[in-house]
Amino acid sequence: MSKDKKAVVLLSGGLDSATCLAIAKSEHYEVHTLSFRYGQRHSYELDRASNLSREFGAASHRIVDIDLSQFGGSALTDPELEVPKHDDVQGIGETIPITYVPARNTVFLSLSLAFAETISATDIFIGVNALDYSGYPDCRLEYIKAFEAMANLATKAGVEGDGSMRIHTPLIQLTKAQIISKGLALDVDYGVTLSCYDPEEGGVPCRRCDACLLREKGFADNGVLDPSLC
Amino acid sequence: MSKDKKAVVLLSGGLDSATCLAIAKSEHYEVHTLSFRYGQRHSYELDRASNLSREFGAASHRIVDIDLSQFGGSALTDPELEVPKHDDVQGIGETIPITYVPARNTVFLSLSLAFAETISATDIFIGVNALDYSGYPDCRLEYIKAFEAMANLATKAGVEGDGSMRIHTPLIQLTKAQIISKGLALDVDYGVTLSCYDPEEGGVPCRRCDACLLREKGFADNGVLDPSLC
Repeated sequence: MSKDKKAVVLLSGGLDSATCLAIAKSEHYEVHTLSFRYGQRHSYELDRASNLSREFGAASHRIVDIDLSQFGGSALTDPELEVPKHDDVQGIGETIPITYVPARNTVFLSLSLAFAETISATDIFIGVNALDYSGYPDCRLEYIKAFEAMANLATKAGVEGDGSMRIHTPLIQLTKAQIISKGLALDVDYGVTLSCYDPEEGGVPCRRCDACLLREKGFADNGVLDPSLC
Repeated sequence: MSKDKKAVVLLSGGLDSATCLAIAKSEHYEVHTLSFRYGQRHSYELDRASNLSREFGAASHRIVDIDLSQFGGSALTDPELEVPKHDDVQGIGETIPITYVPARNTVFLSLSLAFAETISATDIFIGVNALDYSGYPDCRLEYIKAFEAMANLATKAGVEGDGSMRIHTPLIQLTKAQIISKGLALDVDYGVTLSCYDPEEGGVPCRRCDACLLREKGFADNGVLDPSLC
């Protein structure tokens, strides 16, 4: 792989996307990170995304404004809706929860595609995960494959017919524990990352939403303390 | 078809999308129009989209802000790049022109999908056209079909597996003349629409860009005067 091949990496500032960024770097891509101010409940994760981009020497980091809260329909963008809290991971992922943001990954991947095309990148990395996840439809491999097929028809590359646009999902078949193990091997500083859907003042994790509980279990399975809780 | 079935209609304010809106109305959908302030060179078309939404009794009209000019790469969003001007339609559509906005339809359709999902609509209308067009990759039927397949995996409807999300492209196989003929039969007031890529002050068409030339030919082929030029 050429050392200069460009890749766009979707970076929320959470554990998964941070690991995904580390993987893209380890594969010698020139990484361009993209984050979204989409009307989420808090912006702490955007600060984390900036820090991570710096730490990993991203060639550029952009925060794109796209207000998905104007459409409503999710506890992550509608302050009127409560983020569900639980005592353990039991039942997470069995149904689509209220934290699902309609078509969010499709919107994010589409904007990544637009950006990739303008910088002549054909590789996009997204840290979706189909195992320890919240049950979102747009985290499944069949969805990603369909997006990739569409992307190869949507763009100039598609017309030229070389099918070169690739959506990389290095985490999709990993458990949260395996993701963390991989990230630790690649020196990801998880102390910088924030996974919580509903953090307290200052970005302190609630420790009871789906994202916090899955993360906690992942660190426990590795027998490691989560540095963001120290 | 139920009289109350909701549809999302992408509405730029141009001739094609106005006709598409008229067709959706004629099929008895409750139409919700969506326009985009995406960093285009001018906003005249957004005023036209508002007028058309009112004229056709849209149940709602939203203008979504998504700044594609931050990515650059197109004469439609970058004031530094010139919109090409010609004397006739010869050669239009043979190559992808500089007015192509990277992945624009993918971004617009993705946002329509997000909106459709929140209002429980499963029908999206887009006025793309694969014949008299400027040669954009994301105006072709194979692209639209790939988007539809992806949309049916991206959403709650996709998980429930009913494949109900439909992207309607009633103009895709029509010539510009046929589109205009159809619109006139449905009482579209083309005097309200604006197709020009690069209008003069007040929204006066330049009459020399691809969009103006294709439109002019379409009216001429119908033996009708373009009311927007009167």
